[in-house]
Amino acid sequence: MDPNGFKDFAGEMANFITNYLENIRERRVLPIVEPGYMKPLLPTEAPQSPENWEDVMTDIERVIMPGITHWQSPKFHAYFPTAQSYPAIVADMLSGAIACIGFTWIASPACTELEVIMLDWLGKMLDLPSAFLSSSGGKGGGVIQGTASEATLVALLGAKAKMINRVKEEHPEWTANEIVGKLVAYASCQAHSSVERAGILGGVQFRLLDVDQKYKLRGDTLADAIREDREKGLIPFYVVATLGTTCSCAFDNLEEIGAVSNREQVWLHVDAAYAGSAFICPEFRYLMKGVERADSFNFNPHKWMLINFDCSAMWLKDPSHVVNAFNVDPLYLKHDAHGSLPDYRHWQIPLGRRFRALKLWFVLRLYGVQNLQKYIRSHVAQAHEFEALVLEDPRFEVVAEVVVGLVCFRLKGSNDVNEALLKRINGAGNIHLVPSKISDVYFLRFAVCSRFSESSDIQSSWKEIKLRAEEVLAEQPNSK
Amino acid sequence: MDPNGFKDFAGEMANFITNYLENIRERRVLPIVEPGYMKPLLPTEAPQSPENWEDVMTDIERVIMPGITHWQSPKFHAYFPTAQSYPAIVADMLSGAIACIGFTWIASPACTELEVIMLDWLGKMLDLPSAFLSSSGGKGGGVIQGTASEATLVALLGAKAKMINRVKEEHPEWTANEIVGKLVAYASCQAHSSVERAGILGGVQFRLLDVDQKYKLRGDTLADAIREDREKGLIPFYVVATLGTTCSCAFDNLEEIGAVSNREQVWLHVDAAYAGSAFICPEFRYLMKGVERADSFNFNPHKWMLINFDCSAMWLKDPSHVVNAFNVDPLYLKHDAHGSLPDYRHWQIPLGRRFRALKLWFVLRLYGVQNLQKYIRSHVAQAHEFEALVLEDPRFEVVAEVVVGLVCFRLKGSNDVNEALLKRINGAGNIHLVPSKISDVYFLRFAVCSRFSESSDIQSSWKEIKLRAEEVLAEQPNSK
Repeated sequence: MDPNGFKDFAGEMANFITNYLENIRERRVLPIVEPGYMKPLLPTEAPQSPENWEDVMTDIERVIMPGITHWQSPKFHAYFPTAQSYPAIVADMLSGAIACIGFTWIASPACTELEVIMLDWLGKMLDLPSAFLSSSGGKGGGVIQGTASEATLVALLGAKAKMINRVKEEHPEWTANEIVGKLVAYASCQAHSSVERAGILGGVQFRLLDVDQKYKLRGDTLADAIREDREKGLIPFYVVATLGTTCSCAFDNLEEIGAVSNREQVWLHVDAAYAGSAFICPEFRYLMKGVERADSFNFNPHKWMLINFDCSAMWLKDPSHVVNAFNVDPLYLKHDAHGSLPDYRHWQIPLGRRFRALKLWFVLRLYGVQNLQKYIRSHVAQAHEFEALVLEDPRFEVVAEVVVGLVCFRLKGSNDVNEALLKRINGAGNIHLVPSKISDVYFLRFAVCSRFSESSDIQSSWKEIKLRAEEVLAEQPNSK
Repeated sequence: MDPNGFKDFAGEMANFITNYLENIRERRVLPIVEPGYMKPLLPTEAPQSPENWEDVMTDIERVIMPGITHWQSPKFHAYFPTAQSYPAIVADMLSGAIACIGFTWIASPACTELEVIMLDWLGKMLDLPSAFLSSSGGKGGGVIQGTASEATLVALLGAKAKMINRVKEEHPEWTANEIVGKLVAYASCQAHSSVERAGILGGVQFRLLDVDQKYKLRGDTLADAIREDREKGLIPFYVVATLGTTCSCAFDNLEEIGAVSNREQVWLHVDAAYAGSAFICPEFRYLMKGVERADSFNFNPHKWMLINFDCSAMWLKDPSHVVNAFNVDPLYLKHDAHGSLPDYRHWQIPLGRRFRALKLWFVLRLYGVQNLQKYIRSHVAQAHEFEALVLEDPRFEVVAEVVVGLVCFRLKGSNDVNEALLKRINGAGNIHLVPSKISDVYFLRFAVCSRFSESSDIQSSWKEIKLRAEEVLAEQPNSK
């Protein structure tokens, strides 16, 4: 493809993208295809000779769009949002053209340096304690991980290495494997599945602890668990506090958990994957009270801050534990400037990394902090608007406190009727929600997701839910 | 940013990109900035109000370009190539607009199904055994990982889980931790640093084995190591064979290693990160003889097949070991279509994933297999052209067999003189190389990297190397 072909193709793609996004409401949010739908639509082998880009463009509607779940639609209320914006797409074009791999500083100084500066900008936007920021001149600093799952795992591996070293000093006769067998980590039973998975990947025990009536992990519960485990000869080493759980967007009591973690000298990691974006608004920062006690903090601008996936921001007060855990330094990666700025390959699971800081830079500059705050506030207002609609209808109940952009609700009554309601909603495919369950109570999660979402979308979605609820209730044996 | 603003901005970025890439030879390949160069060029905080995209465009030359190591330049011969092409950039624009997260089939069926089909296309292009392909109707199939490091780790974790289960059947009285303490994995001492790192992350012993005179791991060496370890009571469970090492692009003897691995019932993973792209040309497939004995196979189209990072292709004959090792299934991720097509979240370390198969689809269609083969062959020919230039000059020697696109060479003489040569080459910054060392012999690695690279670039790079060599040799005490 020559440069002019590229310019034409990219221009046509920009047209396609704006048409797709600006008219996304008109598409059925959930596809109706069956598994395997695509196979008959494509050849079984790659073509030997090049095709025209015009044919590829045509195939997007023919092959791809029928199988797309439209995450960017205002009718999409499943999971949590995944972010997207025009400036981020253009930034990724540039990243794709430069196509450097930023595993060391010298491999592309701009790639490392912009990331350091952007994580400082972002940390200041959240008012993170200065111990997390590179600009403080201390050890702390930020890094872009691919996902929150990786951040949780990276912190766990750092905490594990740190504890193994500490225990070895006290018990030089113990092998690393003996120590690992005693290590135990903690999180709320409401923590994301990737937290439990980090324990599996890291080969350590993970205890998922009970929550209070508001689904929050409390300090006393953690303290009791740590005491029990120490009595059994185990070694507590890592705690994950979740700010904004996936099931119900509950916020663990970070202040209490932080006090216990610090007293017990275990690594405290904060997983604010979804809700962390809200902390750019001062009025939501009460939810992260106690963050100064954490060792690492993570949230995903790629969820709710208009930066395209993958951009998971992580800060560490002392990255040396992670760096030492991961460092395997061959000659072909050594360079003279070693040490003056981070070599980010030691901060993450993969070795290679794209120039992802460009997305942050473009979005922060082209929106500005005020518009990003406005965006967060508008989603929270829409969640409360939906909450009010649910509360007005006596057939429904709200099952968890609405704090930011998620409303958990259900029809009063059995789990079965709520399962039937969800099945009908998704079957109709006009809007898309996913369920959750806490303490055997099944409920529906309504997340405000799209950057195109407005009050009128909330009203439409609610109408759709009421319509499907009426159909389901009419079919109930006791409704006659 | 409104749709028209986006179209203008994207159009201007497309112009910038073509100007950048088509004239990339004119730029100094290595930047001359000092660590910290960017800090004074940027504000210390994000702007409160939005800026203009035109100002952001201007800042690319002012802030970013001075700190870029130009990986796409024909003067870049460091590491291995990282791929880039116009069709891949346009595919990423579409991926950024759809912005779905493909962690389950239902989360966007097209995202999963295109990946299944593209990995079949690609597997057929390499003539992989059908047991690796989804289209064979068996258990096998492919997945796009972010990097080869992750593929090595994923395979290791699958192998670990498989072996723990097997040993537990024989020794139900052993704890998982006791078993893990006995596990041992193997690779060549020439394997990539990420292989050793996978052992650290997975918490198991990794033995790096000696190689023969051609830097290949041989079957007998592996068999001896396994026997020794079994005698010590250890449990061999995982072998990584490297096809195209980073130091010298050596190819382990896969046929021998495969026979030993199968006989000893240890998981065999093939890491062909860089060189695997060459297997789309039949004349290079002798290098992967024995691949039918492997359990998993991985190479990076994002290195040498014109697909932008991140696109690391991995095939598994039986993904169930990995899936079972990683599976932590919460309700909000369950869906009815479960089981009929892969839920790729169980095949990888992160939970979330972008729509990366689009890049493969666009590039395979818009180049066609023949042009991709032509591209590989042109790079290999350029490597041999460089090799011939080195061999013609009696002051130099070639230190490893040139098989595909890497030439390892040095000045005859001390390591010091070669270190001085490399320092001078990179100091001048007209071309960029990195060193390596095997058995205390320091040498320079010359990789053909850029998609713009032509014979004339090879000639220029060689001229530059000769010039710097003359400077260095003139300074040697015994040259007077």
